[in-house]
Amino acid sequence: MNTGNCMQYAPHGRPSPVVKPGEFVFSVMYLEHGHIDGMTRALLDAGATLKQVYDPDANKVTAFCKRFPQATPAACEEEILQDKDVQLVCAAAITSQRCSLGLRVMEAGKDYFTDKGPFTTLEQLAQAREAHRRTGRKYMVYFSERLHVEAAVLAGYMIDQGEIGRVIHMEGFGPHTLNAASRPDWFFRRAQYGGILCDIGSHQIEQFLFYTGDDNVQVAGSRIGNYANPEHPELDDFGDVNLNASNGAAGYFRVDWFSPKGLSTWGDGRMFIMGTKGTIELRKYVNVASGQQGGNHLFLVNERGEQYFNATNTVGFPFFGQLILDCLNRTEYGMTQEHAFKAAELCLVAQRDAKVVEP
Amino acid sequence: MNTGNCMQYAPHGRPSPVVKPGEFVFSVMYLEHGHIDGMTRALLDAGATLKQVYDPDANKVTAFCKRFPQATPAACEEEILQDKDVQLVCAAAITSQRCSLGLRVMEAGKDYFTDKGPFTTLEQLAQAREAHRRTGRKYMVYFSERLHVEAAVLAGYMIDQGEIGRVIHMEGFGPHTLNAASRPDWFFRRAQYGGILCDIGSHQIEQFLFYTGDDNVQVAGSRIGNYANPEHPELDDFGDVNLNASNGAAGYFRVDWFSPKGLSTWGDGRMFIMGTKGTIELRKYVNVASGQQGGNHLFLVNERGEQYFNATNTVGFPFFGQLILDCLNRTEYGMTQEHAFKAAELCLVAQRDAKVVEP
Repeated sequence: MNTGNCMQYAPHGRPSPVVKPGEFVFSVMYLEHGHIDGMTRALLDAGATLKQVYDPDANKVTAFCKRFPQATPAACEEEILQDKDVQLVCAAAITSQRCSLGLRVMEAGKDYFTDKGPFTTLEQLAQAREAHRRTGRKYMVYFSERLHVEAAVLAGYMIDQGEIGRVIHMEGFGPHTLNAASRPDWFFRRAQYGGILCDIGSHQIEQFLFYTGDDNVQVAGSRIGNYANPEHPELDDFGDVNLNASNGAAGYFRVDWFSPKGLSTWGDGRMFIMGTKGTIELRKYVNVASGQQGGNHLFLVNERGEQYFNATNTVGFPFFGQLILDCLNRTEYGMTQEHAFKAAELCLVAQRDAKVVEP
Repeated sequence: MNTGNCMQYAPHGRPSPVVKPGEFVFSVMYLEHGHIDGMTRALLDAGATLKQVYDPDANKVTAFCKRFPQATPAACEEEILQDKDVQLVCAAAITSQRCSLGLRVMEAGKDYFTDKGPFTTLEQLAQAREAHRRTGRKYMVYFSERLHVEAAVLAGYMIDQGEIGRVIHMEGFGPHTLNAASRPDWFFRRAQYGGILCDIGSHQIEQFLFYTGDDNVQVAGSRIGNYANPEHPELDDFGDVNLNASNGAAGYFRVDWFSPKGLSTWGDGRMFIMGTKGTIELRKYVNVASGQQGGNHLFLVNERGEQYFNATNTVGFPFFGQLILDCLNRTEYGMTQEHAFKAAELCLVAQRDAKVVEP
């Protein structure tokens, strides 16, 4: 049964450190989303050293320290921001507060790594762009549905190798388990979570930019709706978006909170990538009713036939080591700042312009 | 290897006659698409009696008579239209000629069963609507991707039984094998085939109307493109459409001619139906790289868990028997005329208003 558990938030990869202990220090603050575990785990596996953790809720801090005993509780945010050892602040604040926190982190001379969605308004994005230009600090985003899914990493490698020719179309499905009772109050307030396209839609848009290899993308249309959650009137339980890339690729994705109760995991996330010579389908977290356990199912069809790959424990999660090195070397191999900002901008535009479907 | 063979055009169901020999007589004319075999086979399995066949190309007639020896070649179209025994004319003409033929059939007092897409222009649709009103004859359409796929029939039954709650969203993928060398010249001429949304898009729109249970649907947006076939400049090798139903359901589908050469069948047709309480996925013609043979794979996920069903040789193809009885009894159990016309109208509107993606 689908209990909406948090296992997906911290997949265990093979540790592949890019630095030695103490060479890259990060601290964690604001533990509003379970993604903070995945972000922390991935940075640790990539060799980063975890120093402190801060959240106004002491219970959350205590629980975090049980999971990550190397973390020392900090008394306040400022203690971390003023710590000269800390190069990166990793955070999962309430979505509407992610930008203001990021600005404080960047002003303190540190790089920022936030859970998605990175913003709830275009004004926040403009502020972050300005702060990035002025301080040179990074505002990086944990787009976990690509960065922290080995099948998604493998798909990128296959596309780079030309396995499916030129990417001309993509569909993404991002169903999630609502499990409303486990969600904090802010999760249901539009001003705080930003809407479904800002939130879980951000994963999808980022993947479209990545796999098409084009950050010059426009929103061709978007819809949101609340079909079955009238008790949470500000929740979008459904959203979808059409995208057009400047290189001609077209895309569509749907996100929702309708994972069926009997699903064996939190969501049957899919990605369908169509090239001129082949197709890739990802069944990221489950291959429904297949008898197979776990996720990372990749189906490649091209001139050579139909092939199945299980990407678990294969390619790992190279982004996090790249992020560490990018922070140390002031490079952008893992992800460019413009890519992260452009993905964020498109979510915000799609959300702002969405047509509301009336159930 | 995907040789674009015609096997899909005539799936073999269990014969389940609704009439005795001679009680319902049909003839066949115009053999421009392999679908004519599926249409003929299905009517025969449902108990209809095949009398004549006509096509201006004697080779096509000879080949048809080898496959269906019960058919007698007719000297001309008029011979069939004037035959008082014939209750239904079954045809797969060049798409742009399907309506004019249908008008002649209806004027001759017979029902008409045409391959999809049923029209290439809204003017043709208006003529058919008028002829239907005046003559009372039927203009029925072979939407084979639902009517002649057991998994699609089973999905309808499951939805009727409430297995997934209220249908709120659908995605359909209709990839096809181009196999350009095997296609007639008219297939590449826009005025004759009508565009990809009129052609293979018609299956998808019809399914959206059917599974959502709502014929009051609007096109929210559509795109077409020619990504990789510059030698056929009037071919759309890609198209997609967003749909909104008056009952709130939203839909999206993509059709294309990009089935990879190594795919084991002509297209990995999919249908994803999301309800408030569950989901159904159809892998109609292949379950890629699964080791399973054949099609009709249905995946149901709801409160009770994840379940797989192979629908082959289960529910059969009830539409064709219903069509025969509807013709005899002047009823509309199999499909209402308005449903067929509405699906056709939406294809035409989607095609007319489509934005062209520039590769």
